[in-house]
Amino acid sequence: MRAEQAAAWLAARDRFLLVTHRNPDGDTMGSAAALCSALRRSGKTAYLWPNPQVIAKLLPFTESYNAPADFAPDCVVSVDVATEKMFAEGFAGQVELCIDHHPSNSHYAGEECIDPARAATGEIVLRIIKTLCGDLTKEEADLLYIALSTDCGCFQYANTDAFALRDAAELLEAGADNARLNLLFFRKVSVPRIKLEGLIYQNMSFHRDGQVVVALVTDEMLALAGASEDDCDDLAGLAGRAEGGRVYITIRDWPGGASKVSVRSQEDFDSCALCARFGGGGHKMAAGCNLPVPPLEARDLLLKAIDEVLA
Amino acid sequence: MRAEQAAAWLAARDRFLLVTHRNPDGDTMGSAAALCSALRRSGKTAYLWPNPQVIAKLLPFTESYNAPADFAPDCVVSVDVATEKMFAEGFAGQVELCIDHHPSNSHYAGEECIDPARAATGEIVLRIIKTLCGDLTKEEADLLYIALSTDCGCFQYANTDAFALRDAAELLEAGADNARLNLLFFRKVSVPRIKLEGLIYQNMSFHRDGQVVVALVTDEMLALAGASEDDCDDLAGLAGRAEGGRVYITIRDWPGGASKVSVRSQEDFDSCALCARFGGGGHKMAAGCNLPVPPLEARDLLLKAIDEVLA
Repeated sequence: MRAEQAAAWLAARDRFLLVTHRNPDGDTMGSAAALCSALRRSGKTAYLWPNPQVIAKLLPFTESYNAPADFAPDCVVSVDVATEKMFAEGFAGQVELCIDHHPSNSHYAGEECIDPARAATGEIVLRIIKTLCGDLTKEEADLLYIALSTDCGCFQYANTDAFALRDAAELLEAGADNARLNLLFFRKVSVPRIKLEGLIYQNMSFHRDGQVVVALVTDEMLALAGASEDDCDDLAGLAGRAEGGRVYITIRDWPGGASKVSVRSQEDFDSCALCARFGGGGHKMAAGCNLPVPPLEARDLLLKAIDEVLA
Repeated sequence: MRAEQAAAWLAARDRFLLVTHRNPDGDTMGSAAALCSALRRSGKTAYLWPNPQVIAKLLPFTESYNAPADFAPDCVVSVDVATEKMFAEGFAGQVELCIDHHPSNSHYAGEECIDPARAATGEIVLRIIKTLCGDLTKEEADLLYIALSTDCGCFQYANTDAFALRDAAELLEAGADNARLNLLFFRKVSVPRIKLEGLIYQNMSFHRDGQVVVALVTDEMLALAGASEDDCDDLAGLAGRAEGGRVYITIRDWPGGASKVSVRSQEDFDSCALCARFGGGGHKMAAGCNLPVPPLEARDLLLKAIDEVLA
């Protein structure tokens, strides 16, 4: 159904639990919290499922919407959740409405409001809220700005289109404080993160005439930088900054002397095929695998496999 | 005059030389080249003044518009040039029309089309071109996207408003290839730049409970990284990424054992007052000075001066 129909569908129901995805990002949390706020404004009872994995930066924006332990919903709505595997808890088979923008959505819900043309689920929720309430509060505008801007890399990623830029303009006019939110989500990082990036860039290695870029993230680096998991957001993106690369590999220490590997690539290299050689998988331009050896050994194995793939 | 009037003014003249500013950025070069293209489409003879300082990334977009050595213009138009001091060459007193967005414009030209509310001069030129030609070519859209996106940090800076986002949407609809341009201007950096950032982050120091962040950029670091001046764009912005800072200082080796200092700060600290103590100047949140001692000694002097300013 379209956003306008989803609004009517929601208006006819009550006692909502809004469910977000595993490893929650700005789009799933911001979209769900904004919808929760609008449902309450339209007289409904609505809560977020208390996602235990929300990162520290997002928490202050969403935690006040969390459901109390004894809340018994009449209607479960998923927001930005592509497949049932992306639920952290057992919501499989319980979702009555799925609001999403992922082209890979597995169609697991009773009703669907899916628009794969949108850069973020927040853009769909923007339309649902406007139909539901006629307007947008400043807080909802902030939440939807978080949703949209984090999903398109603050308008740097290739999914940024004219539609997304116009939606962002509308959110600013509704009061979204983009200057403050951009500082928080894009421009500022913790001091341990700065130190960690310094170590990663210093140890980054360039192979096969710079076509293969390898970033190592060892436990020793994390300790030297004083970094925690909160400082490790999107480390797999750092190698991709290097001009001239085709394959970008990030290798992280994994318990038991193993390695966790993230591969990103240009369109002309199949990351998924590379990772499949080591029992992993993913997409053509972003995939992952685990190797039972430490990072430096893992790097050698991966470089050898890349040579075979390229040959 | 307004953009529509500037278009009529231009339509009544011919043989234009479009002049850009010293240390040219994306806004001055992109805006001037787009206007040059549109003037030619409307039947005029128009060239860019061949600015010798254009950085390598911008050059392919603008150099084909450069004036031949024997071009004798009838009308000099400045684009994005705030004051006559910003001319690299002697255009003082020769500018018939100034197109600009700087609030600090010194009103040096015969006619002016200045709108300080706009994030970039490119937004004013967009309106001039639409009046002049009725439409925008794909190449002009690319040039104006470069102008706008570089002046607002790809929509991350506080000057990004709803107006700028809508203009960006219009440029995408006119064919601007934002995915490619964002890679070139924001997402990709040279390998020497990555190595240099690694060294800078590793050696960044945090003082006065993290309120003062100091980045050193020494000749030794540049040599270790294999970096040239083309890799040193906006190094003064790196320290500003650190959360919790109020004053961000970047100190670079300067010939003769001296230091070149850039200071950035939050609103509640006067960078200009700090730099004035050492014979420098600038704005409240961004200023600079030179010190006759090497970087580490300069750091000590600056920290002492900051203590006095804060006391």
